[in-house]
Amino acid sequence: MENNQTDLDSIFQALADPTRRAVVQRLGEGSATVSELAAPFQMGLPAFLKHIAVLEAAGLVTSIKVGRVRTCTLEEDKLEAAAGWFQDQREQWKARYEQLDALLDTLKARKKT
Amino acid sequence: MENNQTDLDSIFQALADPTRRAVVQRLGEGSATVSELAAPFQMGLPAFLKHIAVLEAAGLVTSIKVGRVRTCTLEEDKLEAAAGWFQDQREQWKARYEQLDALLDTLKARKKT
Repeated sequence: MENNQTDLDSIFQALADPTRRAVVQRLGEGSATVSELAAPFQMGLPAFLKHIAVLEAAGLVTSIKVGRVRTCTLEEDKLEAAAGWFQDQREQWKARYEQLDALLDTLKARKKT
Repeated sequence: MENNQTDLDSIFQALADPTRRAVVQRLGEGSATVSELAAPFQMGLPAFLKHIAVLEAAGLVTSIKVGRVRTCTLEEDKLEAAAGWFQDQREQWKARYEQLDALLDTLKARKKT
């Protein structure tokens, strides 16, 4: 549980930035080199590499370097873990709304008798 | 789009903290006063109010004060907006996997002929 919490902290922190979300989105289409990933952005490579480092620290991205080329891959399981948190919340509201519906039905039924 | 991005920045930033996620989770059961929300946490009220302020700034929580009592409510639409971002990513992978499946089928079909 403690580890899950730490994971979620760093995953949500990593996603709280438009450049990093765009990188995640691009990697959703398939693995890519750092140069390919950096191309659409108006920023220096050192600044871009910091974003990649944040994504790697959160476990959202892994990379391997072959020769001079570093290729990044999306870790979809980590993204699913964060998506699962939202799913848990949604199930909670759903349960609450069903309780409210049941209460309303009870009140309606009482009114009729 | 720019506004959506800013929204997602502040929503993910707000959720990158276990106390704030716990508050969101609690509010999923229904509205609650600040005192009720603060009760489970080992922290002073000023520190706790800062967490509530971050959630309010992100639009995830709204609050009204009646007399001395401030009551907080979850803005489920905002949470759904963030959940929607994950859904968009998932649809992208799904499309990619379907393309890969189609490619594999084509290769298999070619092998047979």
